[in-house]
Order: sequence, then structure tokens, then C-alpha cells
Amino acid sequence: MNLKPEIEACFAELKDIRQYLHSCPEVGLETVETVAFVKNKLDDFGISYENIGVNSLLAKVDGSEAGKTIAFRADMDALETTEETGLPYESKVVGRMHACGHDGHTTTMLAFARYLADHRNFKGTVLLLFQSGEEGFGGALKVIEDGLFEKYDIDSMFGLHNWPGYAENQIVIHHGACMASEDRFDLVIRGKSGHASVPHLCVEPFAAVADFIKGAQTIIPRKISAHDKAVISITQVHGGSAYNIIPDEVIVRGNVRTTADDVQDTIEESLGQLAKGIATTYGVEAEFTYNRKHPVLINSTPEPAIKAAARIVGEENVLTNELPAMGSEDYAFYMQKTKGCFAWIGNGKDSAVIHNSKYDFNDDIILVGATFFAEIFEEVMQQV
Amino acid sequence: MNLKPEIEACFAELKDIRQYLHSCPEVGLETVETVAFVKNKLDDFGISYENIGVNSLLAKVDGSEAGKTIAFRADMDALETTEETGLPYESKVVGRMHACGHDGHTTTMLAFARYLADHRNFKGTVLLLFQSGEEGFGGALKVIEDGLFEKYDIDSMFGLHNWPGYAENQIVIHHGACMASEDRFDLVIRGKSGHASVPHLCVEPFAAVADFIKGAQTIIPRKISAHDKAVISITQVHGGSAYNIIPDEVIVRGNVRTTADDVQDTIEESLGQLAKGIATTYGVEAEFTYNRKHPVLINSTPEPAIKAAARIVGEENVLTNELPAMGSEDYAFYMQKTKGCFAWIGNGKDSAVIHNSKYDFNDDIILVGATFFAEIFEEVMQQV
Repeated sequence: MNLKPEIEACFAELKDIRQYLHSCPEVGLETVETVAFVKNKLDDFGISYENIGVNSLLAKVDGSEAGKTIAFRADMDALETTEETGLPYESKVVGRMHACGHDGHTTTMLAFARYLADHRNFKGTVLLLFQSGEEGFGGALKVIEDGLFEKYDIDSMFGLHNWPGYAENQIVIHHGACMASEDRFDLVIRGKSGHASVPHLCVEPFAAVADFIKGAQTIIPRKISAHDKAVISITQVHGGSAYNIIPDEVIVRGNVRTTADDVQDTIEESLGQLAKGIATTYGVEAEFTYNRKHPVLINSTPEPAIKAAARIVGEENVLTNELPAMGSEDYAFYMQKTKGCFAWIGNGKDSAVIHNSKYDFNDDIILVGATFFAEIFEEVMQQV
Repeated sequence: MNLKPEIEACFAELKDIRQYLHSCPEVGLETVETVAFVKNKLDDFGISYENIGVNSLLAKVDGSEAGKTIAFRADMDALETTEETGLPYESKVVGRMHACGHDGHTTTMLAFARYLADHRNFKGTVLLLFQSGEEGFGGALKVIEDGLFEKYDIDSMFGLHNWPGYAENQIVIHHGACMASEDRFDLVIRGKSGHASVPHLCVEPFAAVADFIKGAQTIIPRKISAHDKAVISITQVHGGSAYNIIPDEVIVRGNVRTTADDVQDTIEESLGQLAKGIATTYGVEAEFTYNRKHPVLINSTPEPAIKAAARIVGEENVLTNELPAMGSEDYAFYMQKTKGCFAWIGNGKDSAVIHNSKYDFNDDIILVGATFFAEIFEEVMQQV
């Protein structure tokens, strides 16, 4: 691999940083100590920064001459998982763990920041976004709502995620859809409670629940093209507390993934129609709420990243025809605001899967990731 | 109404007893203080007794000559309900209430006991069973397991329940089925958990849940004669704890009522077959448990009670063609051991329904109930 020697030279220190961050995981929007740590490092590198969103941080490196602005993003938050790796730098907090490798992403961005601090002979500005709350806490939206795209005219933006199952020298970059949309829905079915012996005096909710569950699974095969990708999963049903009482209310919850906006629209509309249908059939009230959590992550301009990746791992190890993941990523919101892409860097073929209590970020790919960002920077920004 | 004057004469005292018991409700098999109270009264009346079952009490009145043994039963336990009547003798215990009138049944039996104590010129023995734990706590089974029918050769047995919706001068006595069987079932559907985005890597439990719910409602219309009475109610479904995780396990619970043993058999078998069917269809494990809680309450020999009732309220007020209740009653277990019947005495047309926080036992019917037992006693036992 063609790694940047200046980055490679810092490997011991970068490993220490990554493993330190691993031991002190912070969850959601509460990345206070992580931000303080990052600020301290940026101070060392002589890089300025500003707070943005909720406990996110935007560092800025101006080139020697004026020019366009590009941005890179790393996420910082951990998961509510109890670590079971037994590593010397295992999480010090029971019930919290860097099980998605954001400790590694943060370290990768710091490595790139240090590189940039020493390579300011370019035209324009590079923004480095350290983001909180990626794991379902709306961290990206907080950053956007705080005016990232109003304060800066961002030409393009790049991000990465470590990816178990691919080798350390493989980089996956999709054309178009890279990760799925994620939507969550709630259906509250309200009938009329009563004794189990007299259902005719109640309005029974469970037949409606059953029809909704089965009806939901007709939407993809009947209303979505076989060429499209989508998943509807019922994930929760809760109702009733006694053997002999028909409950008033049953709650059904679920999850929708798609890789195209129009498919997402069709599913939202169809689930809503289904809810109305069961209400009519069974005389229940069916309150349906559809919450669009993450949009489809679309790589609109992956080309500079593909070129950059090829220089590091060779063309044969840049995989551009992989299937998109049906998992979601709040980086998708940035891709609705500017062009750019999101890449996956192999975390090792034998790596535990992300969100698993035995998972660990592969320190070797700090070098791959930071070099990748540096190569994109050199590809996109005019050097002087 | 032709009430026994000796019983009527005690009305003020009986009301006090009933209202005192109302204020001190005890739940399930824990009827310790109620039993102590009853023992005290029986001591006053000069009636002997023995403990039986769990906190149940069996009083015995021997006639002046030898003869057959008959039994009467009253239940004593209250419900886990917070009373909202605002009565001066309201429950002193938050979360406990005599919402089914067992305070009245106990008082009625005491009134009858006192009557018997003064009318011993008969052949045989009368047993008075004060029973705990009728409300789903297996009180009757505890009494039977403790040897009631081994210790005593009981020729026949009689019981009563107050019944809101009928007038105080109406007595309902069924030929045959009087109250339904109650069975409870649990279905644990076990699949394989996983992320909502990859259902093909999981074994999804909710489609099986939906099929079970709908399939259960085909059993009565398709496998049970239109002449039979039965109810299958799904009363609980619980599974899942996150929007984006398909759970391993979903629990479905429900309730079955019938008024005939063969119908009960068919439903148990059919639900079991349905569970096997969905397991085959969806590749889930379906652990089905069917718990026969109360059998059908069959009045095998209602005739003496019908005659006795007619002497009190007149033939026109003895209703023998009413539909059986789909509620259940653990008195049904006694009717599997001996002949006899169970009667309903009107608690007033405007009475709140039983198990309601505004319900109260109608004190007037202590006199009807105690006279009814006295008339049955005189009908069945040879007087000397």
C-alpha cells in the first residue's frame, strides 16, 4: 500500500490515541470529553476550530491562497453496549462501548488534521467535522440546523466507515446509493377493552394487528419493482397485561429500509393506507406515524475518491460494484446538501461485525483512512 | 318474598358483618383475618369447624339423627382492585376490594349457619364451606386436594353468586351448563434475532404471530358446531424492544371459554395444531402450553334448588332458561365430584357489574340467599 510516510511515522502515537478513545466511550450527543480531547490535539497541531451542533466540532485549515471549501467528516459517538473484548484498552464504562469504530474514525481524522497542518500550500479551505450522535441521535441534523451549509459554501464532502468483512487493503466506493434510508413507524391500534369472555362487547384489536403484520409484507412484493431494494420489518408488538382481559390498545412498531426515495414514498403511503384499511375493517382506531430517520446515502460524485483510493491500494482493490448496505448512516443528510461520497475501508476479513460486543477497530486502517483523506484532498484541492 | 323470619330478624347484625368484611378485603389464598372472623362467629353459634385447603374453613352441623351429608359453599376472597365507591365502609386497603361480592356470600353463609344452629332436628350432616382463592387462585382445588370428598361422602352441594342485572327477587338456576370453562394458553414463538435490515439472516417471528392470531379465529366458525358456545380471545402479544432489531421471541397469550367439555377438547387440539402449522410454515419454534383453569360449571341436579327458590320468590321469578355466563367459577370443580347446582341471586337491576371499582354487594340479598340455602336444606334433608 502507498501510505503517506508522514502519517505512517505517527502510527505509535495514533494507536495510543485510538486506544485511549476506545477506553472512554461517550454515547449520543454527550461527546463532551471526546470533544475536549480532540480540541487539545488540534491546539497541538495549530488548527483552529469552532463548536457546532451539539457537542460536535468543526476544525478549519485554510490554505495559503483563497479557493473553494471542502469538508471531511468523522463521527465520535459510541454505543450502549457492554464490551466483551477483554482488550487491555477495553471500555472503562459498563454499558458503553465503541462497537462501531467511531474511536477509529476520530483518530483517522486527527491523523489527517495533523497532515494538513503541515501541508497548507493549497488554494481554499478544508473543514474537518468531528460529529456527535451518529447512532440514531440526529447528530448530523444538529450540525446542519446549526448552519454548517450557511456558514460555509461547501463544494464537496467526504466521509468513511470501517467495514468488517473486507481486507485492510480494500476500499469500497459506490456509485449512487451506498447505504439505505431508515424510517421508523408506530401504529397504535385502539379498540375497546373488556372481558375475554365477551369479545362482542369489546372492539378487539388483535385481528387488526395480524392483518397489519401480514399486509405490510405484501407491499414490497406487490407495489415495489423487483429491481428495487427495500425491507419492511415489524420489530415490536406490545398489548395486553392479563390473560382474561382484551386490551384497549396494542402498539406495533417497525423499520423500513430503501435505497431510493420513490420507493420510500411508496412504502410510507402504502403502510398508511393499510392502517386505514384495518381501521375500516375492524372498527378500531389506527394511529399511524411514519418517522423518516435517515435518507438514502447517495454518493453523487465518487470519482475523486475512487482515484484517491486507487493510488493507495491499487485499482483492483477499489470495489465500486458492491451492493449498498441496508444499514443507514446520518452522513446521508450531508449528501442532500452538497456533492461528495462516503467510502468503506476494510476492517479485516475476520473482524467481528459492527455493533457486536466483541468488535474492535483495526488500528492499521487509521493509516489507510488518513492517507485516503489526504489523497482526496490532493485530488480535489488545487495545490500551489 | 317469603323470607325466613329468624333470618330476617338478624338483618341489622348481618349488614354490620357484611360491611365490616367489605372494609377488610383479603385476596387469593391469604384470607387469614376473614377466616378468624368467621371462626369467631361460628364459636358464637356453637358450630364446630376444621381448617381445610389453604385458609379455607369447613364448618359442620350434625342433625339430631344420622343421615346423608350435604354441603354449601361460600367464597371469601376479594380482588386486586382499588375501590371507588366512596361508601362509609369502603375498603381500608388501597388496591384491594370486595368487587365480586364474596363479602356478601360469606355473610349469607354465616346467616345460614346461625339458622342451622337453631334447627338441628334433621337426619344427617350439613357442611358449610368457606372457601379462599376463588378468583383464579385455585382455592377449590386446594380444598379438594385436602380431601373434602374423601373425608365426607357428600351427597350433593349447593352454592350461589350475586348477579348484577337481575332484580333482588329473581333467582337464576340453569339446567346443565351454568358458567363456562376457562382455559389459558401461552404460545412462545422463537425465531432468530437480527438487524431489521437483514430479515433474511433472521428467523422472523411476527408473520407466525399474525397467522396464529388469524388462524385461532377460524377454529370456532370452522370446527365448532353453530349450536355450541365458545370464545377464543387473544389477550396479549409481547415481543421486541428496539425499532431496528427483529426479536428472538414473541409471546402470545389468550383465553378460551366453552360450555361443553368436547368443545374445550377440540379447541385445545386445534390451537396446538395451529402452533405446529405456523412452526412448519415459518421455521420458528412454537412452544404451546394450554392450561385448563376451570371446567364448565354443570348443574347436574338443580331441581331441589328450583323448588326452594320458588317458595321464596315465586315460580315466575325463578329463571331457568337464561343463557349460561361465559365467565368461569371454580365451584365447577365441586360439580365434577358430586351432584348439585350453583344459583345466581339478583343483585339489583341497576347494580354495577362485578369486578368494577364501583360495585357493591346488595345487603338485602343476604336474606334471600340465606333463606334460599335454608329452603334447599329443608328440601333435601329429612326433617325430624
